[in-house]
Amino acid sequence: MGPLTLSSSTSSSRYLRFISLSLPFFYNSNSHPSFLNVSHKAPRMTVRNCSSISAKPSSELRKKRAGSDSNEQLRALRELFSRPGVEIDAYIIPSQDAHQSEFIAECYMRRAYISGFTGSAGTAVVTKDKAALWTDGRYFLQAEKQLSSSWILMRAGNFGVPTTSEWLNEVLAPEGRVGIDPFLFSSDAAEELKEAIAKKNHELVFLSDLNLVDEIWRELRPKPPNKPVRVHDIKFAGLDVASKLSSLRSELLDAGSSAIVISMLDEIAWLLNLRGSDVPHSPVMYAYLIVELDKAKLFIGSSKVTTEVMAHLESAGIELRPYDSILHEVESLASQGARLWLDISSVNAAIVNAYNSACERYYKSLENKSKSKTVLNDGLNGWSGVPIGVYKVSPISLAKAVKNADELEGMRNSHLRDAAALAQFWVWLEEEIHKDVKLTEVEVADKLLEFRSRQAGFLDTSFDTISGSGANGAIIHYKPEKDSCSVVDANKLFLLDSGAQYVDGTTDITRTVHFGEPTTRQKECFTRVLQGHISLDQAVFPENTPGFVLDAFARSFLWKIGLDYRHGTGHGVGAALNVHEGPQSISFRYGNMTPLQKGMIVSNEPGYYEDHAFGIRIENLLCVKEVDTPNRFGGIGYLGFEKLTFVPIQAKLVDLSLLSVEEVAWLNEYHSQVWEKVSPFLDGSARQWLWNNTRPLVKN
Amino acid sequence: MGPLTLSSSTSSSRYLRFISLSLPFFYNSNSHPSFLNVSHKAPRMTVRNCSSISAKPSSELRKKRAGSDSNEQLRALRELFSRPGVEIDAYIIPSQDAHQSEFIAECYMRRAYISGFTGSAGTAVVTKDKAALWTDGRYFLQAEKQLSSSWILMRAGNFGVPTTSEWLNEVLAPEGRVGIDPFLFSSDAAEELKEAIAKKNHELVFLSDLNLVDEIWRELRPKPPNKPVRVHDIKFAGLDVASKLSSLRSELLDAGSSAIVISMLDEIAWLLNLRGSDVPHSPVMYAYLIVELDKAKLFIGSSKVTTEVMAHLESAGIELRPYDSILHEVESLASQGARLWLDISSVNAAIVNAYNSACERYYKSLENKSKSKTVLNDGLNGWSGVPIGVYKVSPISLAKAVKNADELEGMRNSHLRDAAALAQFWVWLEEEIHKDVKLTEVEVADKLLEFRSRQAGFLDTSFDTISGSGANGAIIHYKPEKDSCSVVDANKLFLLDSGAQYVDGTTDITRTVHFGEPTTRQKECFTRVLQGHISLDQAVFPENTPGFVLDAFARSFLWKIGLDYRHGTGHGVGAALNVHEGPQSISFRYGNMTPLQKGMIVSNEPGYYEDHAFGIRIENLLCVKEVDTPNRFGGIGYLGFEKLTFVPIQAKLVDLSLLSVEEVAWLNEYHSQVWEKVSPFLDGSARQWLWNNTRPLVKN
Repeated sequence: MGPLTLSSSTSSSRYLRFISLSLPFFYNSNSHPSFLNVSHKAPRMTVRNCSSISAKPSSELRKKRAGSDSNEQLRALRELFSRPGVEIDAYIIPSQDAHQSEFIAECYMRRAYISGFTGSAGTAVVTKDKAALWTDGRYFLQAEKQLSSSWILMRAGNFGVPTTSEWLNEVLAPEGRVGIDPFLFSSDAAEELKEAIAKKNHELVFLSDLNLVDEIWRELRPKPPNKPVRVHDIKFAGLDVASKLSSLRSELLDAGSSAIVISMLDEIAWLLNLRGSDVPHSPVMYAYLIVELDKAKLFIGSSKVTTEVMAHLESAGIELRPYDSILHEVESLASQGARLWLDISSVNAAIVNAYNSACERYYKSLENKSKSKTVLNDGLNGWSGVPIGVYKVSPISLAKAVKNADELEGMRNSHLRDAAALAQFWVWLEEEIHKDVKLTEVEVADKLLEFRSRQAGFLDTSFDTISGSGANGAIIHYKPEKDSCSVVDANKLFLLDSGAQYVDGTTDITRTVHFGEPTTRQKECFTRVLQGHISLDQAVFPENTPGFVLDAFARSFLWKIGLDYRHGTGHGVGAALNVHEGPQSISFRYGNMTPLQKGMIVSNEPGYYEDHAFGIRIENLLCVKEVDTPNRFGGIGYLGFEKLTFVPIQAKLVDLSLLSVEEVAWLNEYHSQVWEKVSPFLDGSARQWLWNNTRPLVKN
Repeated sequence: MGPLTLSSSTSSSRYLRFISLSLPFFYNSNSHPSFLNVSHKAPRMTVRNCSSISAKPSSELRKKRAGSDSNEQLRALRELFSRPGVEIDAYIIPSQDAHQSEFIAECYMRRAYISGFTGSAGTAVVTKDKAALWTDGRYFLQAEKQLSSSWILMRAGNFGVPTTSEWLNEVLAPEGRVGIDPFLFSSDAAEELKEAIAKKNHELVFLSDLNLVDEIWRELRPKPPNKPVRVHDIKFAGLDVASKLSSLRSELLDAGSSAIVISMLDEIAWLLNLRGSDVPHSPVMYAYLIVELDKAKLFIGSSKVTTEVMAHLESAGIELRPYDSILHEVESLASQGARLWLDISSVNAAIVNAYNSACERYYKSLENKSKSKTVLNDGLNGWSGVPIGVYKVSPISLAKAVKNADELEGMRNSHLRDAAALAQFWVWLEEEIHKDVKLTEVEVADKLLEFRSRQAGFLDTSFDTISGSGANGAIIHYKPEKDSCSVVDANKLFLLDSGAQYVDGTTDITRTVHFGEPTTRQKECFTRVLQGHISLDQAVFPENTPGFVLDAFARSFLWKIGLDYRHGTGHGVGAALNVHEGPQSISFRYGNMTPLQKGMIVSNEPGYYEDHAFGIRIENLLCVKEVDTPNRFGGIGYLGFEKLTFVPIQAKLVDLSLLSVEEVAWLNEYHSQVWEKVSPFLDGSARQWLWNNTRPLVKN
């Protein structure tokens, strides 16, 4: 999928600075929120009324909002600036929800509501007399169209464009008060922002009781999602909740903490073997989870919890709490001396702030009881005693990334059904195009959805399909819109990046095809992308190797002729969960030192994009496996990849003269496996198409 | 050369910790001293009497010392602990000189003198009742033999072995005073040590007036080196001193500094187009250099400065100062408000400390003159005003690494003469072995030196030759000793890693050969090492790519069968200067983000080592060049390598069935170039040998 790039972040200047030191590229990261600068968004957590929105295509949602009157909203928002208890000079409205989710529910799309700009990434900042919106290169055109004249468009990444904090430092009078909803910022993002504006003596004001946008949005605001949660079958999960909790509690003990607050929605879904449908594309539900050494509490809208889920949770010793009681619980834990493990790159500033404030009160009360510092210091070594935050990366992230046998089996099976749907789709599309039927990029994507939805266990797409004909294929984050998209041109390259959620697994695949005669240039570029894909697929490497070590394998064939691509090569994928997950990646972001481990899933998606001409990407999902090498130097294991994706790679785009004998053998072996594994799911023309497209190639 | 590993450092635990996070290997770094923990050594800088020692082979030096009575020396040293003005509880004696040199003059080998252990890497720590010596795995056996029973051997890197500071914290009574000679530690190493022992309230005491080992060494101590310095011909240097100084001064201005202290000997030699012979293997001279915006001062023993050198220096506006007046000058500069650029990873703690103390005195005197803080603050933005240290990496390091056209020409030429010497050597050795003459590893190395020394412009070896037959080849840092080394076995692999200093260039080459019939296993391993070598040699990569990105290219063929090597793949090499230089490297040390740049020289030396059996390494030097790619994606240049080394790779060790057609073509093309470039330097049997060993191979 939009290789590591379908980001929900805007400028992320800290990250861009990092990249510019290492390689000449810049791209938008979708992964660690701690890299992002001032672009975190999350809802103030009051689940009032509930209705699902996840089934609606996002294109429809957008239409509804685009007409709203941004100027009136700005006026109303600014009126609130002077309300007693608020008293601010500026207000920042980021994109995220309270959980750093990649896909968010409509009721939390406050930045879109206030600005009229509906792109996935953007940060709005409103002062008493100015309003500015930051977004990245993907969205400059869209933002120009959607923003009213009240707004300044900040083209993040362009030379001379300030960051949000730089701009605030420029336009605010000294000692300004900058308001945020602290639920909408990870704790470390809020800290960074605070420091940045402190340079000009501005104060960051946490308005945790009141989201100013919600306040003006009122009854027009969509209801928070409310679909029932379901139990993720143990035959797909592979490990019961009790076992997962037990491992987690061992980690808590090892880290010297007595409880952990988990706020990432996929981490909660994975840990509790639950799935939801609160947001598009990701089978998760809005919730927080606190796991203590002897109990656990799930903070969730109770109407989402069915009797079956209730029983499932009870059997694992998990209690229910209202979603909006999370701060109260955190404060209560602090007052009991709990040592909370908080991943400050994902847990929002409201929670971390509530905990720290409660800890301060605890210390004060200790002092008041005239217990000396000695007691306080002694306490640090025991389990109870004084509360102290343990600020570490969430332990769930890695545990979730390393799939067990049943998760992998579900991934394998769902990929075969997905491959069957794709074969049906491709034969349909080829026939239509050869009949000269004019189909738009959106129509094609809709038809693919139709084929997929007929497969057993289908739930949803795993992200918005990137369906790009000709020059549109060169826009890495291209999202065709119904009214403006292109017709799929029989004489151009067509790039299709799509994926699905099934009950047993998550898919993500890109194929690039030509319906007529590709040019020599297109074939050379495609073949070099394929060589990079093969090189990574075939890599064998020692345990403890970080993913970035392998990144150059996928680029080296393009580099030979002075080409490259401006995105990472691989991202993690959840098992029947988020299509993008950490902590591993295969990328030129050399900061990610997470070693690839057996059971991890990564995408393999090198590409090449020629501006205004065409785009090429070839993407399979891979599972990290042990390789039975004849030697084990260093007494360690050696790892490699197992393919999960089995869909033909178009032979007519391959320039066989560029491929080595071994590369041709790889392609033939792959196609032989595709036929063997996927043909049993097909009949008629799709089966014939698969046969035709899996015949061995012969290098002369 | 001993690939990135012929280190003069001992435990370097900070670095080892870093590595253990990333890959399962550990190896000893030879490069950045800032990675080292407690192993810095340098002389207290009083050049008393002068005589050269650089010509003596180090094996002879060792003999002389090995018999000395360590117990008596320890007793004498401890007596000094209580001398007024000293009053310490422990004394640390590291390996380095005052300049972080890889090869040091004998008079500065204080750790060897006090402990009896003569290995290149080690740190001695003496308390009132204990003495311990840290060294790494290369030297465990040697240290066991050489240390008397008064010494505890600390096997650095082994499980449970404390670092020097951990050990001090364990054995010293609270509030101990730990003495060091601050000339012998880089400033950051001293800071790190200070912090580490402060945990147990120990104090680090700088004894800059008195090196305690010198105090007991007395008249037996070798004289500091005193050979005349020579001017490095402008036809080899390519750029005159005035131009280099001018660039440096621009950088000083940009950094807001008014002067720089340069202490790395190769940096001084490069900047001033001077060469010396104060230490073995590196054509440098002991000196410090201070460059100010309008003048420059070289601190050096005046007897080393010939009339010619004097004129050369004068024409560049460089004044002479006594070597041991460096601290005085630094203090004087501080008192004049100079803002000194100090690379605290290389400049020793004595200098940095002297500057900081003088700055403190300056501030105090300002206060006394009742000049207010306001004046002080205002001063910070101007050139003059108050002195403030500018702590940045030395700008010379990068400037020196990027070779100009004349430096490259000298490197190319010297490599051809070196190749001729090697051809003469190899034919001689093959003939001797086939005549069944028994030659030891040292005899063979000596003969190679003889052939090299006949080449025009030969000066010295560039490091101690690694000449390892059979199992000795598997010892990455093997140094054969006359009395104990093996005979070169006709039926075993023979690894020869050697290099030379010529007036115009520096060489470093490794070849592995078999005089009889290699085993299938040896051929497979050799061929995979060769494939890695070829892959790196052929790499094309975008500008701004750090070297580590290419490291996996050299390993991937070994990884496929579960093999690897525990050292980096490439180090920088100076032009007629140090055989190891930074800042670039090609290594799994992912911390080094220095991009490879056009004109840099790196070694390409993958290997494979089978314990107790054989070692394989194939090393060429490469120069980074621009590649004329048909595209320039991203509007940037693409880089690749030009080979400098032209010596045949033994065909009988190549398993052609493993090589691709392209790899065979690479080998044939390389051998064709070897013949073309080197045959004009040869006649007779050497020419015939070259012909025989450069014939094209045919893959069936």
